[in-house]
Parts: sequence; C-alpha cells; structure tokens
Amino acid sequence: MSGQSDIRPSPISPTVDFDRDGVQHGHLRLPYSRDDSAWGSVMIPICVVRNGSGPTALLTGANHGDEYEGPLALFDLARRLDARDVSGTVIIVPAMNYPAFRTGTRTSPIDKGNMNRSFPGKPDGSVTQKIADYFQRELLPRADIVLDFHSGGKTLDFLPWCAAHVLPDKAQEKASFDAVEAFSAPWSVKMLEIDTVGMYDTAAEEMGKIFVTTELGGGGTSTAASVRIARRGVANVLRHAGILSGDVETAPTTWLDMPDGCFCFAESDGMIETMVDLGEPVQAGQVVARIHATGRTGLAPQEVKSGISGLLAARHFPGLVQVGDCVSVMAVEV
Amino acid sequence: MSGQSDIRPSPISPTVDFDRDGVQHGHLRLPYSRDDSAWGSVMIPICVVRNGSGPTALLTGANHGDEYEGPLALFDLARRLDARDVSGTVIIVPAMNYPAFRTGTRTSPIDKGNMNRSFPGKPDGSVTQKIADYFQRELLPRADIVLDFHSGGKTLDFLPWCAAHVLPDKAQEKASFDAVEAFSAPWSVKMLEIDTVGMYDTAAEEMGKIFVTTELGGGGTSTAASVRIARRGVANVLRHAGILSGDVETAPTTWLDMPDGCFCFAESDGMIETMVDLGEPVQAGQVVARIHATGRTGLAPQEVKSGISGLLAARHFPGLVQVGDCVSVMAVEV
Amino acid sequence: MSGQSDIRPSPISPTVDFDRDGVQHGHLRLPYSRDDSAWGSVMIPICVVRNGSGPTALLTGANHGDEYEGPLALFDLARRLDARDVSGTVIIVPAMNYPAFRTGTRTSPIDKGNMNRSFPGKPDGSVTQKIADYFQRELLPRADIVLDFHSGGKTLDFLPWCAAHVLPDKAQEKASFDAVEAFSAPWSVKMLEIDTVGMYDTAAEEMGKIFVTTELGGGGTSTAASVRIARRGVANVLRHAGILSGDVETAPTTWLDMPDGCFCFAESDGMIETMVDLGEPVQAGQVVARIHATGRTGLAPQEVKSGISGLLAARHFPGLVQVGDCVSVMAVEV
Amino acid sequence: MSGQSDIRPSPISPTVDFDRDGVQHGHLRLPYSRDDSAWGSVMIPICVVRNGSGPTALLTGANHGDEYEGPLALFDLARRLDARDVSGTVIIVPAMNYPAFRTGTRTSPIDKGNMNRSFPGKPDGSVTQKIADYFQRELLPRADIVLDFHSGGKTLDFLPWCAAHVLPDKAQEKASFDAVEAFSAPWSVKMLEIDTVGMYDTAAEEMGKIFVTTELGGGGTSTAASVRIARRGVANVLRHAGILSGDVETAPTTWLDMPDGCFCFAESDGMIETMVDLGEPVQAGQVVARIHATGRTGLAPQEVKSGISGLLAARHFPGLVQVGDCVSVMAVEV
Amino acid sequence: MSGQSDIRPSPISPTVDFDRDGVQHGHLRLPYSRDDSAWGSVMIPICVVRNGSGPTALLTGANHGDEYEGPLALFDLARRLDARDVSGTVIIVPAMNYPAFRTGTRTSPIDKGNMNRSFPGKPDGSVTQKIADYFQRELLPRADIVLDFHSGGKTLDFLPWCAAHVLPDKAQEKASFDAVEAFSAPWSVKMLEIDTVGMYDTAAEEMGKIFVTTELGGGGTSTAASVRIARRGVANVLRHAGILSGDVETAPTTWLDMPDGCFCFAESDGMIETMVDLGEPVQAGQVVARIHATGRTGLAPQEVKSGISGLLAARHFPGLVQVGDCVSVMAVEV
Amino acid sequence: MSGQSDIRPSPISPTVDFDRDGVQHGHLRLPYSRDDSAWGSVMIPICVVRNGSGPTALLTGANHGDEYEGPLALFDLARRLDARDVSGTVIIVPAMNYPAFRTGTRTSPIDKGNMNRSFPGKPDGSVTQKIADYFQRELLPRADIVLDFHSGGKTLDFLPWCAAHVLPDKAQEKASFDAVEAFSAPWSVKMLEIDTVGMYDTAAEEMGKIFVTTELGGGGTSTAASVRIARRGVANVLRHAGILSGDVETAPTTWLDMPDGCFCFAESDGMIETMVDLGEPVQAGQVVARIHATGRTGLAPQEVKSGISGLLAARHFPGLVQVGDCVSVMAVEV
Repeated sequence: MSGQSDIRPSPISPTVDFDRDGVQHGHLRLPYSRDDSAWGSVMIPICVVRNGSGPTALLTGANHGDEYEGPLALFDLARRLDARDVSGTVIIVPAMNYPAFRTGTRTSPIDKGNMNRSFPGKPDGSVTQKIADYFQRELLPRADIVLDFHSGGKTLDFLPWCAAHVLPDKAQEKASFDAVEAFSAPWSVKMLEIDTVGMYDTAAEEMGKIFVTTELGGGGTSTAASVRIARRGVANVLRHAGILSGDVETAPTTWLDMPDGCFCFAESDGMIETMVDLGEPVQAGQVVARIHATGRTGLAPQEVKSGISGLLAARHFPGLVQVGDCVSVMAVEV
Repeated sequence: MSGQSDIRPSPISPTVDFDRDGVQHGHLRLPYSRDDSAWGSVMIPICVVRNGSGPTALLTGANHGDEYEGPLALFDLARRLDARDVSGTVIIVPAMNYPAFRTGTRTSPIDKGNMNRSFPGKPDGSVTQKIADYFQRELLPRADIVLDFHSGGKTLDFLPWCAAHVLPDKAQEKASFDAVEAFSAPWSVKMLEIDTVGMYDTAAEEMGKIFVTTELGGGGTSTAASVRIARRGVANVLRHAGILSGDVETAPTTWLDMPDGCFCFAESDGMIETMVDLGEPVQAGQVVARIHATGRTGLAPQEVKSGISGLLAARHFPGLVQVGDCVSVMAVEV
Repeated sequence: MSGQSDIRPSPISPTVDFDRDGVQHGHLRLPYSRDDSAWGSVMIPICVVRNGSGPTALLTGANHGDEYEGPLALFDLARRLDARDVSGTVIIVPAMNYPAFRTGTRTSPIDKGNMNRSFPGKPDGSVTQKIADYFQRELLPRADIVLDFHSGGKTLDFLPWCAAHVLPDKAQEKASFDAVEAFSAPWSVKMLEIDTVGMYDTAAEEMGKIFVTTELGGGGTSTAASVRIARRGVANVLRHAGILSGDVETAPTTWLDMPDGCFCFAESDGMIETMVDLGEPVQAGQVVARIHATGRTGLAPQEVKSGISGLLAARHFPGLVQVGDCVSVMAVEV
Repeated sequence: MSGQSDIRPSPISPTVDFDRDGVQHGHLRLPYSRDDSAWGSVMIPICVVRNGSGPTALLTGANHGDEYEGPLALFDLARRLDARDVSGTVIIVPAMNYPAFRTGTRTSPIDKGNMNRSFPGKPDGSVTQKIADYFQRELLPRADIVLDFHSGGKTLDFLPWCAAHVLPDKAQEKASFDAVEAFSAPWSVKMLEIDTVGMYDTAAEEMGKIFVTTELGGGGTSTAASVRIARRGVANVLRHAGILSGDVETAPTTWLDMPDGCFCFAESDGMIETMVDLGEPVQAGQVVARIHATGRTGLAPQEVKSGISGLLAARHFPGLVQVGDCVSVMAVEV
Repeated sequence: MSGQSDIRPSPISPTVDFDRDGVQHGHLRLPYSRDDSAWGSVMIPICVVRNGSGPTALLTGANHGDEYEGPLALFDLARRLDARDVSGTVIIVPAMNYPAFRTGTRTSPIDKGNMNRSFPGKPDGSVTQKIADYFQRELLPRADIVLDFHSGGKTLDFLPWCAAHVLPDKAQEKASFDAVEAFSAPWSVKMLEIDTVGMYDTAAEEMGKIFVTTELGGGGTSTAASVRIARRGVANVLRHAGILSGDVETAPTTWLDMPDGCFCFAESDGMIETMVDLGEPVQAGQVVARIHATGRTGLAPQEVKSGISGLLAARHFPGLVQVGDCVSVMAVEV
Repeated sequence: MSGQSDIRPSPISPTVDFDRDGVQHGHLRLPYSRDDSAWGSVMIPICVVRNGSGPTALLTGANHGDEYEGPLALFDLARRLDARDVSGTVIIVPAMNYPAFRTGTRTSPIDKGNMNRSFPGKPDGSVTQKIADYFQRELLPRADIVLDFHSGGKTLDFLPWCAAHVLPDKAQEKASFDAVEAFSAPWSVKMLEIDTVGMYDTAAEEMGKIFVTTELGGGGTSTAASVRIARRGVANVLRHAGILSGDVETAPTTWLDMPDGCFCFAESDGMIETMVDLGEPVQAGQVVARIHATGRTGLAPQEVKSGISGLLAARHFPGLVQVGDCVSVMAVEV
C-alpha cells in the first residue's frame, strides 16, 4: 500500500543514535496525550550496542505484555553486553508492547492492541499501531536477523521451544532453521501459520530477514529453568550470526511438527481439568481435558478428546475456561 | 462474644437434608439483593452423602476462589461417591467462597472478602461473613474431621503438601498429623501460624475438630499430577477416618518445617526473576530472586537473598512484583 | 441497643423547619467527603407542608432508587400541595435513597446500601446508614402515618397493589389495613414478612406508626396508568388520615394473600421466557417460565413450575436470569 | 469499493455445512485473542435445517443484544423444527450480536459495536464488523427472504409490529409487504428510513432480498403475549415463503405510517413521566410526557408536546431521561 | 482526499438557522445510539447572533473538555450579546467537545477522542470525529475569523497568553498576529508547530481563515483574573474584526518565542517538585523541577534542568508525574 | 471503649527501631492479602532520626493523598536531616495514607477511607483503619509535638496557613498557638471544629499533645513558593521545640478567624466561575461565585453570595461543581 500514511513520518523519536559505536541505553519516545497527562509520552526502553559495520540483530520481548522469558533475558543482556565483544550491531527492545508490559497484560491497556496482529501499523493510528509502524519502517529495515521472544502468557502454557516458519524462499527458510538449531531450546518447531495477517513475523520475513521466535513456557510467570533457556538461546543466536564472539553452546533439541487437527477447543464454559501434562504422550481419541460445570455437584464433565496422536505441546492455563477457548495443542516428533 | 448477631439465625437455607441417608446434590441458598436482581441469591453447591450414624467429614475447596485442586477433586468425588461405600456422612462444599470461585479470584467480587480471614462471620454482615457464619454455626459443629483444600492461587506457587497445625491439645494435634500422613502428599508440613485471627482453620480447631489443609501447587491453574495428589489425598483421609471403605493408599512423604526467617519480601516494584525453582536447595545468603526495574535498560536488578538454608517451598508467581509482596518461602526437612 | 452511636447526633442538617407553617422546599444536607469533592454533601430534597397542629404524614419514595411511581407522585404532590388544604403536617421525601435515585439503581452507588435493609442505621456509618439513622431518630418519631412507595424496580414487575403487614398489635394492624383500603389500588395485600431485619417498615411499626406500602409495577419505568394509581392513592391516604380535606376517592380493590410456596427461583442461568403474564391464573404444577441455555441451539429449556394455584402477582423482569433469582410470585384471592 | 479488505476471507468458520440436508446445531467460530484467553473465540450459535433445493430463509435475533422476542422465538424454532416439514433451507442465528446478547446490552461489550450500523462490515475490523462482514458476504447471499427480529431493548418500548421498507423496486417492496401481512402482528408498518447507512436491512435490500423486520415490545424483557406474536409470525413467514408446510395463521393487523414530526426529544435531563400509554390516541399539542428536575421539590416539570395527532407507538422506557433522548414516537393509521 | 466520507452528509443537525437575524440559542444534535439510550443524542449548545451581512466570527471553547476560561467567557457572551451591537454574525460554541466538557476531561469519555487531533473528522467515524467533520465542512467555511480558547487543563499550567501561528501566507499571518495583539492578553506568542496533523488550527488556517488561540492558565480550574482576560479578549477580537461596535480595550502585552529546546520531560515516575514558578526567570542548566521517588525515604531526587535560558511559561500541574510527561516549557521574550 | 479490638496487637510491623540513635529509613509493613498478591503488604515509608533522650516530634504528610506540600517538605527533610543536629527524636511519615498517596487521591483506593475521619482506627478493620490504629496506639503516644501537613487537595484551594485548635486546656492551647507562630506561614488560624469525630487532630489533642496543622494551597499541585513555606515551617517547629538546633526563622504572619457563616455551598450542579480570588476582600452580600448551567446557552447563572464580610480564604477548585459542594470559605482578620 502506498497511501498517505506511509509518507507521514513516525511520531516516535529515539533518544539513541543507531549509528554510534558503544553501548547506549535510551528510549523510543511516543507522544501520547491523555486525560491524566495532556503532554505525556509512552517511553519504550531501548538499548543499542554497536561495534563497527557488521550485521545487525534486532532482539525483542513482550510483543505480548504478559510473557517474561524474553524481557528477563533481554534486560539482562542489555545490562551485561560489552561493545568490545560485538561485531556489528545489537538492537534490544525488551518490551515491544511496553504499555501492555507495564500492566502485565497480553494486549495494550490503551487501545487493546495485540501487537502481533497490528503490522504494518499506522503512523496516525492507535498507540499500538504507531509502535508497529516504527518497527516496520525504522527498525526492521536495519536488521539482518530478528529474534522475537514469546511464551504462553497468562492463559496458555507451552513446552519450551524455538521456531521458525516454513517459507517460500528456501534459502531464507534454511537460514532461519539454522538459527533455531543454534538457539538450542529443548524443542524446535517448523511452523506453518494459517493466518499471517498482521504478524510481526510476516513483516520481517517479507523483508527477507532471518526471523526466529520462541514459546518458552507460560502462565504469566517464568522459572529459573525457562530463563536459562532464553539466556543461552539469545547468546547462541548472536554467536551463530557472527555478532557475538565465541562458539554456540549446543544442547540437544527435538524437532516437532504441528499437524492438522492439533488444536482442541472448549465446547462449554466451566472449570477445566487437564488430564495430561505438557510433554506427555497422547493417543488419538484420548481425553486430554475435562470441563466441569460449576453450578451444582453431580453432573458429568464434558470430555475433550484429541483428534490425533502425539505429545501435549501446549494447554489452556487458567482454572476456568470459556466456550471457544483453545484447550490443548498436540505436536508430533519429526 | 454473645451479642445480638449470634442469636439471629443464618439467612442461608440448605436444599439438602443433612440427616437423610443417600446422595443429595443441592445448594446453600443465600438471599442477596443487588442492582441486577432485587430478589437474587448466591447458590453454593453442596453434596451430602450419608449412610448411617458414623463419623462426619466436612470437605471444602475454593476457600480462596482461584485455587483449583480442591474443587476438581471434590466435584469429582461428589459425582462418584456411592452411599453404600460410606459409613457416616460426607459433606462436600467444593467452592466455599462461591462468588470468588465464579470469577476466579482469591476474594469475593461482592465484598472483597477473604474467606480465610472472615471467621467466625456474621449473620447480618457481608456475603462472605454470612457464609463464614453458616460454616461456624451449622456445618463445623456437625463435623468430626475437616479437610480444607488450598493451593497458591494466581499469585503464589507451592510444593504440593498436606499440613496441620501445632496445637495446644496434643491429642488433637496427633490426630491431625496422622490424617496428614494418611493424605500422602509428596510433602507434609507442621505449621505454626503467627496470626490465626479469622481463619477457618482456627474456628475448626477451637471446636476440637481434626483439621487438615493443603497447598498443592498454584498459579491459578492445576496439573494432571497435582489433581491426582488431591484425589488420592481426599480418599485416603476418608479411609483413614473410617468413613470410606478400603485401605489408605500410602505414598512416601517428606516432613517439612517452616522456621523463623523463611519469608523474603520484595523491597521494590519491578519484574521478578526467580533464580531457584521449587524444591531446589538454597544456602543462607543465596540470591533466590532478582527484581528488575522496567523503566530503562542498563540498571542493576535488586537481589533478594534467603536468610536461611533449606529448599524453596513457595514463590511469587506473576512476572511483575510489588514492594511488600512475598517473594519466596524456604522450608527445611525435619 | 444503647451504644455510643445512638448518642451521637446525626450529621444530617435540614434546611427546612419542621415546626413552621406553610410550604417549604429544602434539603437534608449530609456532608460527604469524597475524592472529587473534599467538602461535598449529599443533598436530599424534602418538602414540608404544615398547617397547625394536626397529625403528621411522612411520605417517601425511592427507598429503592429505580422505582418511579413514588417519586413521580411525590414530586407532583410537593409542587401542588396548598397549605390551606392541610390540617397538620405533610413531610415529603420523594427519594429516600437519593444517591441511588440519581443513578437509577436499587442500591446506593456510594456504599451499595439497600436502604430497606439498613435500619435503624448508624450516625457514623456509611452514607446509606446515616440516612436511615436520620429517618429512625428524626423523621419517624414525628409521624403518625407513614406511606412508603415501592415498585418492582429494574429487575421485578408487580401487579399494582397497596399493602400493610400482619402485626401483633391488632388495633395498629386494623388502622393500617384501613389505610390500605383507602389507598384504593387495584389490588391490596396482607403481608407476612419472613425476615423483617433492617426494614424501614419494621422500624416504623415498632414505633406504633400506621405504615402503608405499595408495589405499583416495575421494570425501572412507570406508565400513565400506574402513576395515576399512585397519585390517587397518596391523596386518599392523606384524606383518610384527616390531613387533606375532601373525601376518599374509592375504587374497587381485590385483597390477596401470598401463601407458603408462592415463590419460584431459577435453578440455572439463561434467557428467561415468561409463560404467563401478570394477573393470569396458574394451576399448581403449571409451567410459569422456561429458562433457555444460550450457548447453542437444540437444547431443551429448563421448566419452572408453580407449586401452588393462584394468579401471577410478580415476575422477574430482565430477559436474562441467574441461578437463584426469583422467577415468579403467586398470590391467591382472599 | 474494491479495497484489500474485500478480498480477504472472513476469519469466521462455521461448524455446520449449509449444503447438507437435515438439522444441524453448530457455531460460527470467530477467533478472538484477548487478555483472558490468548487463543479464545466468539462462538455464535447457528442452526441449519435443510431439505432439498427450495428457497432459503435467514432468521435472526439479537441484532441488538437486549431484545428478547426474537431469540426466544428462534431458539424455540431451532429446537423444534423437523427437516421433513421444510422445503428448502432455514438458517437460524438467534443472536447475531452474540457478545452483546451475552451481556444483555444493545451494543457489543467488546467494541461498543451497534450491529445495525456496522454493515457491510470488515474482515479485519472489530469483532462486530467481522460478524457483519460474514453476514454480508456469506449468509445474506444464500437467502431469498430475511426476517430480522427487533424490540425496543432496555431503553425503548414499542407497540408490537412487523414492518418493511418503502423501496425503489416496487416488486421487491410488494413482496416484502406481503410477508409483513403474513407475519400477522397486531400492527404493521411501512417504514421510510432517513438514514440507512450501515443497516443490515439496507444490506439485504440492496441484494434484492425480501427483508422483514419487527418491533415487538421492549424494556429489555418480553411477555408471554409478545413471544406468542413472535412465534406465530416466524412460522407464518416461513409458510408464506413456501418453506414450511401448512397455511398462514392469519390474525387482524392495523397498518401504520410514521409521518414527519412523529418524534419528540427530551430538552433536559430528569425523571420522565409518561402521560399517555402505548396505543392511546394523542392530539397535536397534547402533553405526552413531563420531565421533572430531581434536585429539589417545587419546580415545574418541562412538558413534551406532540407535534402531530395520532397514537403513541413508542416511548422512552427508563425512569430517567437525558437531554436529546427520544421521548415518544407517534404513528397514524393508514 | 475525495473519498466516500466527504460526500456523505453530516449526521449533525442544528436547531438554529445560521442565516436568520437576531439571537438564537439552540443545539447541534448528533444522534448517538448507546446502551442506556437506544435513540439518544449528543446535544451541543450553540448560539448564533446575527445582524446583517457583515463578517462572521466563530468562537469556541472546551476543544479540550477540562479547560474553563473559554466556556466561561463564551457562555457569558452568549447570554449578554445584543444583536443590535453586532455587524455580521457571531457563532458561539462554548464547548466543542461537549461530551468531554460534561465529564471535565481532556478527551471524550465516549471514544477517548482528542478533538484537536481529530480534524478533518469523518461523518461516519466516532462521535469526536463526527463533531470535527461538522466544524470542518459546515462551520469553518462560514467564518472569517476563528477564536479557539485553550488553557492547560487538569495536567498543565500556563502563563496567560494569546497566540497565532507562523504561516506561509504572510498576509494571513499578519492579520492573525494583529488579532492576537487586539486580544491584549498579558503575553502573546508566535507559535511554530512541529506537528500540525489533525489540529483544528490547521484546518482553519488551510482555509485561509484568521485563526487565534490562547493558553490562559490551567489546572482544570479558572481564576477571577484569568476569566477577566478571556472576557476582555473575546470582546476585543470582535471589535477588532468590526463585528462588535466600540474600540479595542488595549492592555500591555509581552511577545514571547518558544525556541528549540524549550521542553523538559520527566525521565522517571514520582512526586514532582516545581523549583521555579510561572513567569520566573531561569538560566540554562538550572534545576526547574525535582522528581522524588515515593517508595522510601532517603533517596536523592532526580533533577530536571532547563537546556535554555528564559522564563517558565508552562509546567506540569499534578503532584505526581510519569516518565515521559512534559515537566516544563521555557519561553524567551522577543 | 475497652472492647476486644484494643487488646489485639496491630498487624503493622516497623522495620525501624524507634529507640536507636542515628538516621533510619524504613517502612511500616502492613500485610494486605489481595487478588493480585495473596501475601502482599502495604509498605509505608518512615524515617526516624534520633539523638538521645530529648523530646519527640511526629511529622506527617498525605493524611489526604492528594496534598503535596507536606510530602515534599518531609521527603526532603528525611533525606537531609543529620542526627547530630537533633536533640531527641524526629519521626517522619511523609505519606500517612500511603495507598491514597500512590494514586493521588484524597481517600484510599482500597477502602475509600478518609484517614482524617478514621481515628481511633481498628486493628482488625479496613486498611485505613489499621493505619489509624497504629498511629493511635504506637506513634502518637511517643510524640510530644505533632505536625500534620494539609493542603486543599484536588478539589479545594487555600490561602497558605498554619493552624491549631481552640482547646479546653488553655496551657495546651497556648503551646499549640506558639508552635503555629513559630511555623511562620503567611497566615495563621485559630480553628474551632464543629465535628471532631474521627480526626487525627482530636486523637492527638486528647492525649495532651501539641498539635499543629496547615493548609498550604491546593488543587492537587504545589508551587515553589508553597513548598518553601512548608520547608521553613517544619524546620521552625523543630527549632521551636528544641529538637533541631538553631533559631526560628521568623516571617510575618496574619492571624485569621473563621466565623459563623463563613461557608457557602452550591445549590445546583454546573460550571463554576470564581468572582473573587484568594485573599481578596469581600463584602457581605457580594457575589463570590456564579454557577452556570451547561446544557444550553442563554440561561442566567446562579449567584452565590457571601453571608459575611472578610477575605476569601478557600474556594472550590475544579471547573465543575455539584450541588452541596463547598464553594467558598471566608475568614476575617483577628
């Protein structure tokens, strides 16, 4: 699209200089006039570490505001990265959807924006759309490789995996899968998205970038173990890309596919009982969850059965469930 | 206290007959006039299974509305219990603080009442106080043994344990610890409460009842594993009490103490990073968590250090933390 | 009770003089400090019409804030009453629970107080309790006869009736029923309350006052017909009491009883379908309402059957219903 | 318009097969990611009854979520319709704006969308726009005749009528009025809309469909009488269309026009007093309502006078009114 | 842009006739269907005073709903203006963003619309956009001179000034500055906006109108002094334009520039301490404010230093401040 | 009162030792279990500076959470006070109602508690009552002199004054007025409270303490000038008490009385226009404010007239006003 929006400059101004060597800690400042501050701003933390003209990695967390392995690994990396260990540039935005991150919610409290369905964004749109537009037009074009951290957030829980998409450009695809392999999460996934509209992933891939993403747990928390995976992963990806010195710290990973029929959805409201835990094997037709009516005792729960065999890769997290919620996701080893 | 409140009858009326043999599924009806229903009611599910004149067990879940192992085990038990297998009476209230359970919150959405700090309750108080009063004056007096399920809820996570209190009456205490042993959770705890004001536990214990409680996980979810522990535990306690036929299914348990200095609290707001996972050993002075400022990159996190050695028994769950929140609880093996 | 509260004077100050002859329009001023007005007040409109030393009538509406026949009749009466037509005193408070009346809700938006369960009130309690206390200690003692208007509000709908309570003092009871007869609503009811705790009715009756009340429709609206009943009724009661000159305008009324088993409650949530309209005859066992599940088509509705024969006197009003809501009330002709 | 939106497929997927014979109860599933369910869905109930290749009727309720005659008639019809009685196809969506229907509000709680001002919708718009788009591009094209139920909702009350629009294509208009006549509501209306932008009606009419609508009461409730009209009406329309076997059950109807000047609006805030009830005659200049100031007694109410003679066809329902609210609508017999 | 929106007529209808001589008090009626009034309206007060064919002034306040000097001066002017004193037309809209004005908030409670970033508006957009569109297409074209009152609102405080923009058309610019001079505020400002997208100012200026605006204080209040400035200013502008008879009442004014670097922003959250009051001189590098952390005592406040010398022209008003809020604005005398 | 509450210990535990010499920065920790932190706390900052056994001053701010001169002066004092300059003890709690202070509201967001109407508090009451109880039973008994800072908050504005109450114990009264004189605010006030129920002031005075309070501005902000008054005042009071070394920095003050009839209240809702600014003289009968109806232009404003002559000492701050709000307070020079 080549409408008026694209010509308009982004209202966001960075307080860092992307072309300066060294370590800079700053903000992306987005003016945001609101009832409790007429001349207020959204201030998104950013760190740029640059040493000469090598490749550029763009590292992001909190694309969804309630996912913590990414922000924890990236705030830590930003604090510890020494420019002398870098060849090229590392751009770190630990919390892309910063308003959502501040409230610990998936979407923005300002406009309910789901960052990962807001691309390519709009410079004159909502706050979430303005942030997406800045990534689309200013940050993504600078990057050679993009690592975007996800976890399940408050309402889903995942096996810890790193992933990339099946792509039409097989060279780009291979480079992406190689980066996933380097990340060395316990599980690795080749993803085929049904609906890529509005995704950050797609925005990056359509520019030809190497794009790597993760799901590293969930529930709106993190564990010592899941954060260790994230920390090792981001360092490995930077080493693999030649930006950080040193060898990739390999660890064994198992590759998974998510075949047709891998999703189960709730057909009623109620209290959910997970019958299988993450990583456990499931046979086609097996009950993976039960949904209990909560209005009275003595009623039979609704059973949710998997349509396929495999292992439980993701599940609904909160104790209550609503009709239409995703209850479980199955995966099969490649 | 012998004020006017105590003489006033409870506004709650049960639709079950506690003295009738067989299985009954019904409600505790509490009239509740509100803007969207002038003559509405809170309808708390209750199940009574009775076979003759044996002892009475009172089984409760969702004392806090976001804790699920108890309700899952008790809705299941209520649906499957056959009166012929019972000697005496089993009273099951799977969701004590039913309004809180319906919204999946710790406290009641009606009056913000924390059920476990509302005893002995008031017949003319708030909705939560009226429910507490009904337990205080109607249900607890009927019971010989009381099992009240807890987990960490949305904001805490616990090792799975069963527990009873250190009591002045050592015979009562022993009977309680024996019931804990019968429950056969992976961990068992001898608790010494600092502040027992308003607790359901205290109300029951002061009447001389055997009172057993649990912490079986948390995060506002449950797992297949944690629900299995709850199901086995409740059946074991009923068998141990001679109410349910059959032998206790024993499983190994480790007894824990929670010594002075076991609690760590957050001294600032921020994003929390758990450095140790549940059940892992900790040395005195070790960093158990770090709290990261989220306004900018490059700042050192605040470190939270354990004052004692032991193993991590409980922790803050959400990714964000506020000053004064409990960050971690240590325990030591007996 | 003779506690400290009773000695403390009410914080409410009237801007009218109850002992002055003539017509006065003023307010009951209740200081109410809040976040948006540190030195704010609740200003409850009041009208006093006095002519000499005859009897005193206390007329009130909007005891529940979403009931309109009373306020409409009383604002109109206050505007039109000529002191020369009066012998004694008429005190008119068209909207007792004034904060609730301003928001059109049953209970107060400030403290969720249900005025008719707040007596005798407290001078140092919540706003609703302070208003109740002022009626208890200042206004009720001045009255010989009290007329308190009710309707069904937003969530109930009633046949239009006037009513008084069966009382232990049969002289007081007869005087009350005579006033009901004078009101001349289409229906008249002898009420026997189960639970009188906190009611304005009880407070007045315990002081030996003649107390008359109504239910004149509902749904949070009024009709031209229902307001005509209210207007005629209040004038008739004043004439009957000898306060207003002229004869009672009699109209035929039918006396009803509300026998045991007259209430039906919803046993599930859903969309309600009333199968019988107000005033229509019902046989014991007849379906008076059906509750439809709304999550999918093809399910059978739950049927609500009347336990007794009679006519439909009141019903749930909104299209949606929750478990425990009163669905219908039956009455029988005396 | 031929923008990108139109090419994009709807995100909604049905769980029914529109081309399969028999009765199917299913859902329209609309993925909806939100803070409390990352992978949640809106699940709109749908029923398809098909028997061979005859004409197709599309029947809808709860276009506005607080109007109940339509949903009550359509959930009932869906449960009872036998495919053997049908020639062609009946598509039943009892609650178009399903999120609004679940909360009992006119507009959607998700995006405040007024369904009847959201056509033609957008596949990448808000939830309400996505539903509208699915009707626009998937359901309306399948239909020969469309019946969309309305009532007054929580804030208006109407005489019970069936209606169709005056249309430029007089053959289409005649077919529509014939269907209205078949519906056999007590009143029938020939409507001339001033502003048809965004209406479902217009969307259907522009495709050349026969479009019939209703207003069958209001107040956010229904009566036994109003639901009987709806049930008979929908069966009559299906019989009239040759889809359902049997003869139309005719009942007398009176045709009305809504001439210029039929609307009265409030010119101040206050408590409204309806001076005329629905169906009663009104002379030009007559006071149809009064608006009382509620801050003090003794003030004269504002009078609202009808500009034309006729009968009262609709009115404001709640007891409180705001400046600019529609107070009354007059109609004249044809 | 010449899209479909522009062809569609505005949904707003005025109850005044802009071409009629005399004084008219009326409304701009904007239909607004909402959950609590299906057929409701936003009713924006408007006053038109016309006497013959002279020039037209368009006077507006409450472009932001929490700024009061404008509405106070304009409600007063509308009440007192005598058509015989006028040559031409005065159109007064004391509260442009009327929904925001009713709630005392900067932006609209309906759609969070900031009126001054909503131009040119949309006839089928949100309520704020519909109002903007009406000004864009109906009111601005009628005007020769436009005076739009602003103050700081609840979150900013300003020196009292009148201002106009530096414009490419120097004749238009001079006419605007002359009008500013006529206004005779204590301070006068030549403004150069960085971002003019969506501003009412820009919409007017692009049509070639003389556009004058103000900042007259702030804090969400007004003073007797600031209202006097506003009253004198609007009369002076009308006199200067030849619309109102009489001479301009001149008063001394000081012209200011707002040079590059005049803004300071908060770099952390906390409690703000203003170190300099409005109008006081500041040297480059001087601390103009300190931001205190509020979580504990004993911490050093963050200092905010001015980058330039000048005088303090505006400041953050509330006691608490958030990162990114504008803390202070410096100006220099011309 | 000697009820059970008084015996129960406070749930608050300090992290400072009141009997230790030197400077300590810590917290009052109040456990507060809530939905988003089961084991959370309210952490109220406290600073204790002690040097030997001299007198004790208790200094408090943010008794109301939106008043800033006190917190600004006290956070500053706590950071800068050197124990060597002290003889005795200074206890500083810059924000008594800390939850209210964090949200910038007069009352607590947790329980709507107005701290200054919550004394003597309750150890088992609401959060605000628990804090009051801790002051009542733990902090006030330690103090010899108490200085509690107030300003007008977001809804009132005051002339800057220091004040003490007329007391029955004339020695105590004199000591208090002497401390007021030492404070050296521009204005000084001898206050006679009508209603002292629940006040912190009364609690302190009834223990025989010297109690000094202030009103130093308002509007929910502060100025450089008002903070200078607060800083000088608190230092002067400490010097006057012999706790801080050095001489009182005297400044001229004018003593005021607030006679009967000094208050004016709004008799209608609307937009307020202050006709007189703070400190300006007013004659009895003079219009001090006007209240403008906002629904239409052309209406006469309601005039608010002062009943007495004097100078304007306080006024309503926000631009909108509600019936019953305090509009103005007059004072007269002694």
